[in-house]
Amino acid sequence: MSLYGAIEAGGTKFLCAVGTGPEDLRAQARFPTTTPKETLGKCIDFFRGQPKIDALGVGCFGPIELRSDARRYGHVTTTPKVGWGNADIVGPLRDALGVAVGFDTDVNGAVLGEARWGAAQGLDTAVYVTIGTGIGGGALIGGRLAHGLVHPEMGHLLVPREPDDLEFAGDCPFHGGRCWEGLASGPAMERRWGQRAETLPAAHRAWDLEARYIASALSTLVVVLSPERLILGGGVMQNSSLFPLIRKYLMRSLAGYVQADLLIKGIDQYVVPPLLGQQSGIAGALALAESAAL
Amino acid sequence: MSLYGAIEAGGTKFLCAVGTGPEDLRAQARFPTTTPKETLGKCIDFFRGQPKIDALGVGCFGPIELRSDARRYGHVTTTPKVGWGNADIVGPLRDALGVAVGFDTDVNGAVLGEARWGAAQGLDTAVYVTIGTGIGGGALIGGRLAHGLVHPEMGHLLVPREPDDLEFAGDCPFHGGRCWEGLASGPAMERRWGQRAETLPAAHRAWDLEARYIASALSTLVVVLSPERLILGGGVMQNSSLFPLIRKYLMRSLAGYVQADLLIKGIDQYVVPPLLGQQSGIAGALALAESAAL
Repeated sequence: MSLYGAIEAGGTKFLCAVGTGPEDLRAQARFPTTTPKETLGKCIDFFRGQPKIDALGVGCFGPIELRSDARRYGHVTTTPKVGWGNADIVGPLRDALGVAVGFDTDVNGAVLGEARWGAAQGLDTAVYVTIGTGIGGGALIGGRLAHGLVHPEMGHLLVPREPDDLEFAGDCPFHGGRCWEGLASGPAMERRWGQRAETLPAAHRAWDLEARYIASALSTLVVVLSPERLILGGGVMQNSSLFPLIRKYLMRSLAGYVQADLLIKGIDQYVVPPLLGQQSGIAGALALAESAAL
Repeated sequence: MSLYGAIEAGGTKFLCAVGTGPEDLRAQARFPTTTPKETLGKCIDFFRGQPKIDALGVGCFGPIELRSDARRYGHVTTTPKVGWGNADIVGPLRDALGVAVGFDTDVNGAVLGEARWGAAQGLDTAVYVTIGTGIGGGALIGGRLAHGLVHPEMGHLLVPREPDDLEFAGDCPFHGGRCWEGLASGPAMERRWGQRAETLPAAHRAWDLEARYIASALSTLVVVLSPERLILGGGVMQNSSLFPLIRKYLMRSLAGYVQADLLIKGIDQYVVPPLLGQQSGIAGALALAESAAL
């Protein structure tokens, strides 16, 4: 059985692991995200101290360059994160460890991991969305991760304003209160209500409004991507009372337009949390390693 | 060189052709869309009168069943069009003509045709949208047509209302004035302005509003699908003054979020009409035939 390395490369921490799958993680380590040189150096040292891996997978914060023919393939591109603009991620890892490196966005990794071991097993087409500090999505389409001009990211799709929320200026530096992230990310909730999302009581009307914005965005994803399942993770989604509200409002937003039994009769299985839970990210990176080894 | 049959199957007419490509159409015929039996019968008679084809492609109005393992694969599904609900399209054609039948939505056919011979040549990821009686889109992702739970169709993605258009009730029977089709289809324009879109003068403010709604929807498609090119066809887009307005408003709507040279430096080549023009549909069906023959 092949042994893989995995890096969940986030803006605040890098999580490294070695294993054959999410239920067989043989070693793990966590490093704060400092400079690229220091952070990648610690990852390399970690893997050198482990049994030889067959391939490495990296699920990375973005935006990143994924076009295999691009000069900066495997780099982070235009992040505002100091020191990481145009930072090469794949090159130093591949050179130091001498293995194939599977590289994609953290959310594309997550949807691949869920397809391999989690909530999207057996599906050809699925979407994973994380709703937290930001909003981002990854898509498996026809069994393959979707790439394109850059990569789908979904957080900045536009949504109609809810009639009881016309005053809020929004929190997106690009799109104000026009896009999903500007209206429904964790920071947007904090800005609208004056307190951190996780401190809002379960009965606060913030959650009903949040569910409506998420449902609007999901209804757009349904008609654009036609996924067989929508998997929602991230900090905001830790409030599990959101799921029934989102399902209700998604059905209301679609208004009977999409006639598919999987959606109509199985909404509870159509909009779901990641089955891999907190391991979604690292499992995704393992799945990227496995793909790179094929 | 292989000879293919093509059917552009629309709600008002069926166009049949035989050829090797859009510049080599050797015979064509057009039939009004009456009953499935009569309409498909005329198509079959037409192809029987031609030299033997190697495969047939059908770009079909929808919604249609595309899951190859579904009992009703190759059928139109829930159309309100009388007589066509649950009508089998592929079965009668394949049985009568004894060839492989490539079957997909008209807009998926169109994007494949544009990729093969038109405006999306050499691209892995492109979107074709028709804006006319309705709004519908097809997507090529990673070089393959996108399918899923049903199929992407895009017309019912949600868009924010423009501040100078808050009164209009919208024209979508499902989503009123919340979705793209309800706000920007040809019938929506007619309902808003009290006259048919093609009779509105070029200087009428209808066109500026129309361009803003189209740009909003395209900006959502850009962040969800990350296409390398957006191809816009259909009746409403015959007003070519829309293109520069749409390009301007798309850049404004994205607001610098997507940093890709193809988009920033080449917006005139990023949002384009179909290169195959009125032949987009029949060329798409030929491309579907070619795919079926592979």
